[in-house]
Amino acid sequence: MSVRGGIDLGGTKIQAAVVDSAGGLLGDARGPTPLTGGPPDVIAAMAAVLRDAAAAAGVDAGKLAGVGVGSPGDVDADAGTVSNVVNLSGWDDGVPVGDQLGSALGVSVVLGNDVQVATEAEAALGAGRDYSSMLGVFWGTGVGGGIVLDGRSWVGRGAAGEIGHVVVRRGGARCPCGRRGCMEAYAGRAAMEARARRLGAQGRRTALFQIMDERGRDRLTSGVWARAIEQGDMLAEELVERAVRALGAAIGSAVNLLDVEAVIVGGGFALRFGDPIVERIRTAMMRHVFADERPPDVRLATLGDLGGAIGGALRVPLKSS
Amino acid sequence: MSVRGGIDLGGTKIQAAVVDSAGGLLGDARGPTPLTGGPPDVIAAMAAVLRDAAAAAGVDAGKLAGVGVGSPGDVDADAGTVSNVVNLSGWDDGVPVGDQLGSALGVSVVLGNDVQVATEAEAALGAGRDYSSMLGVFWGTGVGGGIVLDGRSWVGRGAAGEIGHVVVRRGGARCPCGRRGCMEAYAGRAAMEARARRLGAQGRRTALFQIMDERGRDRLTSGVWARAIEQGDMLAEELVERAVRALGAAIGSAVNLLDVEAVIVGGGFALRFGDPIVERIRTAMMRHVFADERPPDVRLATLGDLGGAIGGALRVPLKSS
Repeated sequence: MSVRGGIDLGGTKIQAAVVDSAGGLLGDARGPTPLTGGPPDVIAAMAAVLRDAAAAAGVDAGKLAGVGVGSPGDVDADAGTVSNVVNLSGWDDGVPVGDQLGSALGVSVVLGNDVQVATEAEAALGAGRDYSSMLGVFWGTGVGGGIVLDGRSWVGRGAAGEIGHVVVRRGGARCPCGRRGCMEAYAGRAAMEARARRLGAQGRRTALFQIMDERGRDRLTSGVWARAIEQGDMLAEELVERAVRALGAAIGSAVNLLDVEAVIVGGGFALRFGDPIVERIRTAMMRHVFADERPPDVRLATLGDLGGAIGGALRVPLKSS
Repeated sequence: MSVRGGIDLGGTKIQAAVVDSAGGLLGDARGPTPLTGGPPDVIAAMAAVLRDAAAAAGVDAGKLAGVGVGSPGDVDADAGTVSNVVNLSGWDDGVPVGDQLGSALGVSVVLGNDVQVATEAEAALGAGRDYSSMLGVFWGTGVGGGIVLDGRSWVGRGAAGEIGHVVVRRGGARCPCGRRGCMEAYAGRAAMEARARRLGAQGRRTALFQIMDERGRDRLTSGVWARAIEQGDMLAEELVERAVRALGAAIGSAVNLLDVEAVIVGGGFALRFGDPIVERIRTAMMRHVFADERPPDVRLATLGDLGGAIGGALRVPLKSS
């Protein structure tokens, strides 16, 4: 069987994909991430969503060649464990996701870092498929990154690709990670929301929180930001521009170090705003690119929010026939 | 013959080394870079210095397995040409260094980027020899860098490793490259001198220029900076600390992207100040390293100012016997 499954474990939702030997999508599904109960409930939900994707593909989940998981937190692929998932409770110590999900589904399970597998999916099948070297940038609550060099992921000793923690202003804004001046401290949706709340409390006018309330949200989702921008909200535009400039500086720095052929920009925030925001990021990046006679192409991710699940599936080894 | 020659072409001096098959130093020599006359004079001087190194090694230069050159500017290794050497006149267009030096010496010549070959030398024989991945940082008039991943140089499309143009302060100081906020705009010796002159003209007291005059120099050499620091010169210490912080931020950003095992710090300024300045850079870097439970080792380059010449020699292919 050369049909593989993939799961993207997110802080709010779980997505699954079933792909053929070439990576072509056969079926997909999604469901909410259980926020109570702890790891066993999350793993049960992952199995259920994967079974839904298999059903959509018309295959038996137990007959898949394997299932690959793109996970946040610290992934130990050899041990099959995940720890330190910030947005989920009970995931501080090593959760044996490989064994438990494998038992639940009756197939072998491999684990990978969520951003790395999403980068690999874009490199193999998405916006990066024409390039042998690329930087993947995923702009959401935080900003994650992945690096492909000579057609292979570069992960260093496991912690490479942290584009969100490239410094854009030494001594600058406090980042959610506790350090100062990281790009994510300006561009992460969490940092953008924190600043919007602070400036709102200081009396700056903005429609952001009214739109949030109207939509029944308790946080500034990408959709809330987009609606505010459509309405011409000055504060929202100012904070998006600030984020774009930070992204441009960090990506420019990465390009100066790595001279990759392409930068692929994905993640919920970028996908919501599409090509126009990618063009703004490219312009901001160009202010900092040293070898500016031959800059990298900068493109929007094309696998959308299924990139992580597809990338997980691509991690499943196929027996050569 | 498995004995190879290497030449490091610098803006003020030319250095040459002759090494055995294992890279062991057999002889070395140096001479001033001719600042008048243009490329033919520089190439003649390169040949003369290489012959001196061969004589010191007790070998005939014409019998070397080849000569490798580490050059500033844009190096086209395939064409054997060098262009855009900023500090030398007449090097704007492609100078056929490979052919002309090869004719002068009667051996084949290979070309490489000066900082890349110096990084390769440290990786093979110097402070980086126990690591499979490393970042080389060369702190001098500017700040150059080289990257080794999985034991091989990563050069991207030819322009990778520009650690000096990693952004440390978006919208910050003007860099000699014309952009804003690059690390080199704070840490390059040229930028440090420009700022010292500006602050001196504004009335800040400093012994830097008096020491320069006493030594018969027309610029602030590393030795001038070191003497001023020894005398407790406050402005000199302030500018060195500013440079160290910029180096720390840029190196921290590079570590967050690449998760290398080691950072090797060389170049004239770092070599003059030695291990204590490397320790200060490490401390400044740690403020920004995301995976701080497993930071890279940070070490002083051990090949001294011969690293470039030795790295050039290592570029000469050896026939397997």
